[in-house]
Amino acid sequence: MSCRVSPVGIFDSGLGGLTVYKAVRELLPSEKLIYFGDTARVPYGTKSREAVISFSKEIAGYLILKKVKMVVIACNTATSLALPEIRRMAQVPVCGVIEPGVKAALATTPPGGRILVIGTNATVASHAYEKALHRINPSVEVMEQACPLFVPLVEEGWTDKSVTEDAALEYLSPYLSKKINTLILGCTHYPMLEKVVRNIMGSKVHIVNSALATAYAVRQILEKEKLLAPQRCRGTDRFIVSDSPGHFSVMANRLLGLSPQKVMVKRF
Amino acid sequence: MSCRVSPVGIFDSGLGGLTVYKAVRELLPSEKLIYFGDTARVPYGTKSREAVISFSKEIAGYLILKKVKMVVIACNTATSLALPEIRRMAQVPVCGVIEPGVKAALATTPPGGRILVIGTNATVASHAYEKALHRINPSVEVMEQACPLFVPLVEEGWTDKSVTEDAALEYLSPYLSKKINTLILGCTHYPMLEKVVRNIMGSKVHIVNSALATAYAVRQILEKEKLLAPQRCRGTDRFIVSDSPGHFSVMANRLLGLSPQKVMVKRF
Repeated sequence: MSCRVSPVGIFDSGLGGLTVYKAVRELLPSEKLIYFGDTARVPYGTKSREAVISFSKEIAGYLILKKVKMVVIACNTATSLALPEIRRMAQVPVCGVIEPGVKAALATTPPGGRILVIGTNATVASHAYEKALHRINPSVEVMEQACPLFVPLVEEGWTDKSVTEDAALEYLSPYLSKKINTLILGCTHYPMLEKVVRNIMGSKVHIVNSALATAYAVRQILEKEKLLAPQRCRGTDRFIVSDSPGHFSVMANRLLGLSPQKVMVKRF
Repeated sequence: MSCRVSPVGIFDSGLGGLTVYKAVRELLPSEKLIYFGDTARVPYGTKSREAVISFSKEIAGYLILKKVKMVVIACNTATSLALPEIRRMAQVPVCGVIEPGVKAALATTPPGGRILVIGTNATVASHAYEKALHRINPSVEVMEQACPLFVPLVEEGWTDKSVTEDAALEYLSPYLSKKINTLILGCTHYPMLEKVVRNIMGSKVHIVNSALATAYAVRQILEKEKLLAPQRCRGTDRFIVSDSPGHFSVMANRLLGLSPQKVMVKRF
């Protein structure tokens, strides 16, 4: 049985989901958090639907065994492909990153406006964003662009190299003439490239980083379910990966200024 | 029991090993070949030693169940980390890609010359090339450079984009003043970037593509073990991947002009 002092489980294919983890940690300092990064099978964005669903269910099952009170899928690919399956198997609330990002995007887009979603191959092929945006507001025009090089560029730590600007220009220049109102960073790695994307798209385009929106959604769900940890509690952090804990620590620090004290390994 | 008409098993983390497959197919048209690409867990080059050994043993075991007469590890990362373990478990000859590449490189390097090896993080960290080169010729000077973006760039099909030139320049420019005699493409994906590397390094540097050297080594081993298929036999091709057979077919065709008729899926 989960209760208010049970942990919140957050998972991603690798370290991109740490953008969500960081936002949740800042917003909810009393919560115990468990972060799982599937570093043995990263990236998910180029894998098939079946593979992503199978990996995601395996991890959600592992977090549920750790008695989490909530599961946060901090990965757009896993959210777009595996959210319904994980909701079905879990007895606890499950939150993905797409719905919060979609709501944040619609809040700043005029009726009939244009939204560009960038993400991995798998996320874009699933059209999960387009469907979610149109479910709430059928008037907006949605364009989707896969940027499969972005995850390896971030994982290489090349967020401010000219190579990354070139790659971003390659993906984004076709949209410069399209009068985009809002761009959704539809992958949890992409906030680390926000500056590069901003420089290309210009200051008039509103950029949605769904990590923060997701953290607010997590707080809202915990509040509604009366599962928020008491304020007197001190939050704790656990990091578990399926491979290369050392590299994970170094990159968490280099990219996000996080310093995981100890990173455990769980292989599947 | 394996015999002359048994198949040769070739495996890689994804589609890079197809450069080896293609060279073997051209040199040995009478052989039955089974190619396994671990597309569910690609790339290996950023994974840990333990993970790469465990994945490689799983695949070698699967090929051995298919009664192959020889195992070819068409992946530098897997060769550098898992070759001894696979030799221990297999009752058949096992050939990697490093030794053939090393011999080809030494054949064109003067005594005391300089060899630059480029590969994945895992291959470079293992120093497998440096050790193998020095075991045969301790006089050569060996430099090693990891190029982790090269595999995703190839898998994106961006082999002739300026982004790829920029990335290559980022990795290789420090070596332009080092009087390199020979450069080893120490990853089976990299032959697809040979032109880009050649443009940067200039025409005086000898570039070793180990796919062809490996194919010759395979022929030599089969000859020595009296396991070459009789010339009257017609070679057959089987392709098996752990995920996304459609993407594999498209890329095999786009990058190497191969057209796998049917790609099977085996998940672990």
